Amino acid sequence: MKPCIVWQTDFGLKWGAVAAMRGVCKQVDPALECVDITHEIEQYNILAASREIMYVEPFWPKGTVFVSVVDPGVGTSRRACVAKLKDGNYLVTPDNGTLTHLFYQVGIAEIREIDETINRYPGTEDVSVFHGRDLFAYTAAKLAAGVIDYSGVGPSYPLEEIVLFRQDMIKAQVNGSSVKGIVSSVSDPFGSIALNILSRDFKAAGYKHGETVHVTLSDNGKVYFNQDVLYEKSFGFVEVGQPILFDSSTNYIELGINQGNFRDAFHVKSGKDSLFQIQKLS
Amino acid sequence: MKPCIVWQTDFGLKWGAVAAMRGVCKQVDPALECVDITHEIEQYNILAASREIMYVEPFWPKGTVFVSVVDPGVGTSRRACVAKLKDGNYLVTPDNGTLTHLFYQVGIAEIREIDETINRYPGTEDVSVFHGRDLFAYTAAKLAAGVIDYSGVGPSYPLEEIVLFRQDMIKAQVNGSSVKGIVSSVSDPFGSIALNILSRDFKAAGYKHGETVHVTLSDNGKVYFNQDVLYEKSFGFVEVGQPILFDSSTNYIELGINQGNFRDAFHVKSGKDSLFQIQKLS
Amino acid sequence: MKPCIVWQTDFGLKWGAVAAMRGVCKQVDPALECVDITHEIEQYNILAASREIMYVEPFWPKGTVFVSVVDPGVGTSRRACVAKLKDGNYLVTPDNGTLTHLFYQVGIAEIREIDETINRYPGTEDVSVFHGRDLFAYTAAKLAAGVIDYSGVGPSYPLEEIVLFRQDMIKAQVNGSSVKGIVSSVSDPFGSIALNILSRDFKAAGYKHGETVHVTLSDNGKVYFNQDVLYEKSFGFVEVGQPILFDSSTNYIELGINQGNFRDAFHVKSGKDSLFQIQKLS
Repeated sequence: MKPCIVWQTDFGLKWGAVAAMRGVCKQVDPALECVDITHEIEQYNILAASREIMYVEPFWPKGTVFVSVVDPGVGTSRRACVAKLKDGNYLVTPDNGTLTHLFYQVGIAEIREIDETINRYPGTEDVSVFHGRDLFAYTAAKLAAGVIDYSGVGPSYPLEEIVLFRQDMIKAQVNGSSVKGIVSSVSDPFGSIALNILSRDFKAAGYKHGETVHVTLSDNGKVYFNQDVLYEKSFGFVEVGQPILFDSSTNYIELGINQGNFRDAFHVKSGKDSLFQIQKLS
Repeated sequence: MKPCIVWQTDFGLKWGAVAAMRGVCKQVDPALECVDITHEIEQYNILAASREIMYVEPFWPKGTVFVSVVDPGVGTSRRACVAKLKDGNYLVTPDNGTLTHLFYQVGIAEIREIDETINRYPGTEDVSVFHGRDLFAYTAAKLAAGVIDYSGVGPSYPLEEIVLFRQDMIKAQVNGSSVKGIVSSVSDPFGSIALNILSRDFKAAGYKHGETVHVTLSDNGKVYFNQDVLYEKSFGFVEVGQPILFDSSTNYIELGINQGNFRDAFHVKSGKDSLFQIQKLS
Repeated sequence: MKPCIVWQTDFGLKWGAVAAMRGVCKQVDPALECVDITHEIEQYNILAASREIMYVEPFWPKGTVFVSVVDPGVGTSRRACVAKLKDGNYLVTPDNGTLTHLFYQVGIAEIREIDETINRYPGTEDVSVFHGRDLFAYTAAKLAAGVIDYSGVGPSYPLEEIVLFRQDMIKAQVNGSSVKGIVSSVSDPFGSIALNILSRDFKAAGYKHGETVHVTLSDNGKVYFNQDVLYEKSFGFVEVGQPILFDSSTNYIELGINQGNFRDAFHVKSGKDSLFQIQKLS
């Protein structure tokens, strides 16, 4: 079996962009299978693309060719690249920050810039706005099909030149049993919000399932949530409508409402000014 | 060919949850094909999940492994199961009511609880909020790939213990040519509403294509639609914007508006208080 | 490898209609692969369907079986057909105008009406509202699987009888360096608007990348955009928020805003009353 090509973009599924990319892959090799992560990454939100692919990448067989296209700079000087990850997977993407989470959490073994003179879909030389189809799909398909090997992508360049969102990868601080950090994501469709503390670090700070803890949330210094909350392994351990702290499927701690939407209920945003603190009950 | 794994959830396609489940299947066997029904079941609406899968299940080859995950009780005491249907298909799902329509309309031959000690995706023992990935995808893939047979799912339990929404399966009453029943669904994207009377029962009550009939709709006793309506085989037999009674693709009677949206036009809801009556013109 | 079946409809993905069609295909031959273009064509908008498939069709291997179902007249006298394109692809569709763009831009070699007596999915004789499943999916699958050849679809009929939206295929007028035409589409999810002038015709009129040109847009005679705009090969050549004229991925000229939404910013509609004029700076 040839490896799958696994996709995410901000193109949406209301038009034919995704199917055009798939057609290009099928022209390279009809046996290639394309699978979608999502095509509804927030438009132009490169950091969201970096975070989403991290959620999926560990669960695919090694050798999978991922493609991520959130590319507001398409056709300008930003590099089109293929990263080889330390776990054996590949990511085909504009080098514009998409590689951030994979860089820190999986590691990048090598990176190569796509050579347009050999890896551009023939006949599209006059189009500069659809590298997803003309460079990324075509190169990913050639790589997955074995038409080229990794060195056939184009010249390698130093890992130090990879564009990274370094400031978004800070970790929560643990001080005794007090944990302080940021809300790292609010994109869960059920409205749970992700905190930048791993479940294992949270447990190492002394917290146990079944324990009620004190949670404070603030935005730009203004406290908007200040309650005792149960810490458990899933939502259903509190009544419908009640808040709950739980271990998420990405191994981070999340805060949700059983059959409700925490993000919407409290208008939570993510990022460096959106802080949380968790403390033991006194 | 191995059977397909055919999915429905309420996870949405804006993030990577579905692709993570597919990756788990591909790790079990790269030859497995996953196909989506929908990932936009209304969140937490188990009854809608039960109804939707009924719409699709009869059209797939026998032996297909269906997976349905609308699971507000994930990680609590509700059972994770695999039902073997009387027609030879399988449904992998939380046993929380999803099996209702299949139980009454296809029949369940046997039901087994997933044994987590052998059918949980390795390394996810500390995660309780994503059985879709860690139990259901993994077990469905092992079953579809032939890694386990049906008895390898886990212990069987009595059919009487299956959780069913019995009250939602009532049928319309036919009294001479008068038909009374409920609006059973308003989820059609074109806005047609489904009545709980089969086309063949409606015809047996004496109605024929081309006939104008009298339709009354009421909600909690208040009549909001009271008109003569043509009964035909499709929408296009009335002018654009006119109401029409027709035989739906699920073999029930539906009420729609040609190139319009009946549900939105009349704010129709479904359920036991949303009644219809159809009578012959006097 | 058998050819793929590539789909577009206005059914949406919130329910099981698409999965029911796929199940029918798998019953014909489990080896068939179905791929989606989109299921979110605007409901009943046949012209949009005609335009969208044109965007995708050239990028698929020859022999591909496309299916397009935007079919407000389902079950009435409109023909169900399979067109054989001059490039070797097929389109299975109601003959209601969907074939317009392919007719003018690729060419149709032959057209046949689906013979319901042999190419209807057995057991659906009493259903008239879901030809997508009962005629189009079933016929497409038989054709892609080789169960029937093209002549097995049903009787051919004269190309002159194909339903076309002739008035929507007018071309822009070039008069020296002045170009006048219509906004042909506003469906791009990034909000760019398509003008009915090919990039090569625009360049032949004397325009070059890097040149600032004057663009006027009017709706029903009322001017709502009247600015100098840079013509370049991609969005990123102007500041975020600035308008830009560029060569689209379909080889037409488009007008957009870098990381913004031109359509929404100026409430642009498409069609014969939505005019543009481009002129050299004086």
